[in-house]
Amino acid sequence: MSEFRRGATNNRWVIIAPERGCRPSDFEQRRIEYDAGPNACPFCAGNEDMTPSELYRDPAPDGRGWHVRVIPNKYPALMPYADSAPEPISRFFERRHGVGTHEVIIESPVHNHDIPDFCEEQMIRIVEAYSARFKVLMENLSFRYVLLFRNHGTEAGASLLHPHSQIIATSIVPQQVRSSLRIAKAYYERKERCLFCDLMLAELRNGERIVDENDDFVTWTPYDSRFPFEIVIYPRAHSHDFSTMADHQKVGLARTLILTTRRLRSLLGDVPYNLVIETTPSLTARPGSPGSRSILPHAYHWHIAVIPRLTRVAGFELGTGFYINPMPPEEAAKHLRDAAVQGIP
Amino acid sequence: MSEFRRGATNNRWVIIAPERGCRPSDFEQRRIEYDAGPNACPFCAGNEDMTPSELYRDPAPDGRGWHVRVIPNKYPALMPYADSAPEPISRFFERRHGVGTHEVIIESPVHNHDIPDFCEEQMIRIVEAYSARFKVLMENLSFRYVLLFRNHGTEAGASLLHPHSQIIATSIVPQQVRSSLRIAKAYYERKERCLFCDLMLAELRNGERIVDENDDFVTWTPYDSRFPFEIVIYPRAHSHDFSTMADHQKVGLARTLILTTRRLRSLLGDVPYNLVIETTPSLTARPGSPGSRSILPHAYHWHIAVIPRLTRVAGFELGTGFYINPMPPEEAAKHLRDAAVQGIP
Repeated sequence: MSEFRRGATNNRWVIIAPERGCRPSDFEQRRIEYDAGPNACPFCAGNEDMTPSELYRDPAPDGRGWHVRVIPNKYPALMPYADSAPEPISRFFERRHGVGTHEVIIESPVHNHDIPDFCEEQMIRIVEAYSARFKVLMENLSFRYVLLFRNHGTEAGASLLHPHSQIIATSIVPQQVRSSLRIAKAYYERKERCLFCDLMLAELRNGERIVDENDDFVTWTPYDSRFPFEIVIYPRAHSHDFSTMADHQKVGLARTLILTTRRLRSLLGDVPYNLVIETTPSLTARPGSPGSRSILPHAYHWHIAVIPRLTRVAGFELGTGFYINPMPPEEAAKHLRDAAVQGIP
Repeated sequence: MSEFRRGATNNRWVIIAPERGCRPSDFEQRRIEYDAGPNACPFCAGNEDMTPSELYRDPAPDGRGWHVRVIPNKYPALMPYADSAPEPISRFFERRHGVGTHEVIIESPVHNHDIPDFCEEQMIRIVEAYSARFKVLMENLSFRYVLLFRNHGTEAGASLLHPHSQIIATSIVPQQVRSSLRIAKAYYERKERCLFCDLMLAELRNGERIVDENDDFVTWTPYDSRFPFEIVIYPRAHSHDFSTMADHQKVGLARTLILTTRRLRSLLGDVPYNLVIETTPSLTARPGSPGSRSILPHAYHWHIAVIPRLTRVAGFELGTGFYINPMPPEEAAKHLRDAAVQGIP
């Protein structure tokens, strides 16, 4: 089974998940299988028996097909229970069982569609599926943090072309999330206001990094963008928890996601990208965890990051955590606003 | 000119360096130019006039050629001085001039060699060049941290095939380095011993992650490896500063680097990788900076990380800072030890 590990020289947890491939030659092989074609694709309609049994289905009106399916990942990074007692922790080497879960959201029966190809109705169904699975996993007391992410293109880490997202629930709140929560809480304690609400107002007033806005969502390129054309999507109304969206917000988010990815495609072609939903840890977690502080619902504001992968994470970034971004976000926003986009919903 | 930026929602600095490419179409173009062939390669012997003027040269005995050259990067991420007064800092958006320097070490006149192809003498010359430039930059009071790194292969972020390393000196100590120094200092304050010396002893006693050792260096796969076949190289003798190596250590390091990269090539072919030298910040920095604490020379231990790039940094890693590694470091070490390596120096 997989395990969380932390060494003595830094605070960073890693997941060692040997189930995902072991021989040195496996690494090249997995890249080749990215697009095996619809017949061999486990996510295509008609190949449902190639996947583990379904956790969620948005059925098609004919009663046999489907619009969206959620399945357990066949090669999970984490497992929902420990298969033995935890091993003793040594002085330098901390380890915990890899408890968590790893699901795949198959976003369409169509093999080669991506978000910019979806109609509004399909995208709303996908947002519904995201929200439903989030809610289920957030209520599980074994899990402390739920991350929904989407990798598009091999250079963004996707292992299959067929449109899909992944959800990983972990029994540890990631260091990076803890740090973000700490900053938000410190701001709230000082001002009794949400840092992200105030940041959004500053961005709207300034305007030069704004890409789009509708009644429910605002989209901009962050001041401290690590990657060229990095975009964030924030709900206008304060909310700490992604899974509590109202219906009109789900429609607004579906429209925003289609529009944002169409802008990227218009400007950059079929660019590889990652999409990440950043939300609070489970608030039902045990006392003393960051999620149990009652201030968090006021201090944190969920959002989505869309990160095109035009530059590589190289030695400088790995060695320092410093990112070099050759595209100022103010120029990126201008390019994105000016991009010719057909059929905005 | 470029700038350091920090946003309100996290402690992370980024470098916005617009000199490095501005139009959306530039990104694809730069990848294509990775191997333009020896005639068009600015780093090849005979093309010296294609580069900015030299900062360092290890001359060949004929008096005309060279073994190693160091030049300023033609597209520097940072500049050695500010070209205007600093702009005011606003509530949410912190910025500083991109003060620093960015150099390129051309490691051979031969276009398509890499470390495993070098003879011991050439590798010693390269280590000498690394050390000499480190020393010069560490003594400059404008710079707080010096990072030497090497990207091999496009997937590891290299923009040119010709063997080269880069040095970036920054006027800010990176957050990730600060965090690592804090942990080392806390350990020293508790035990009056170097964390890394003790970790090395634990690794040697355990043995399962050790790959190689010689009189001066020990090589292992870290317990908390983020990437498959990640390797660290530590000097046996305690030293906080890479640029203070004795001559016999330079020979030992040259041998270790050749051997380590030959093991990787034997096992994984011409795998893309990053190499990063992790050392202390400048100790001549202004009072109050982490470098000015006199405990650091005792608490920190320089080392090198060699990171093959077989897996991608994807949505999960970007969203949480959590890395998923499918190759347990204990197995990676066994594969590396067993790799058939010709002509170990």
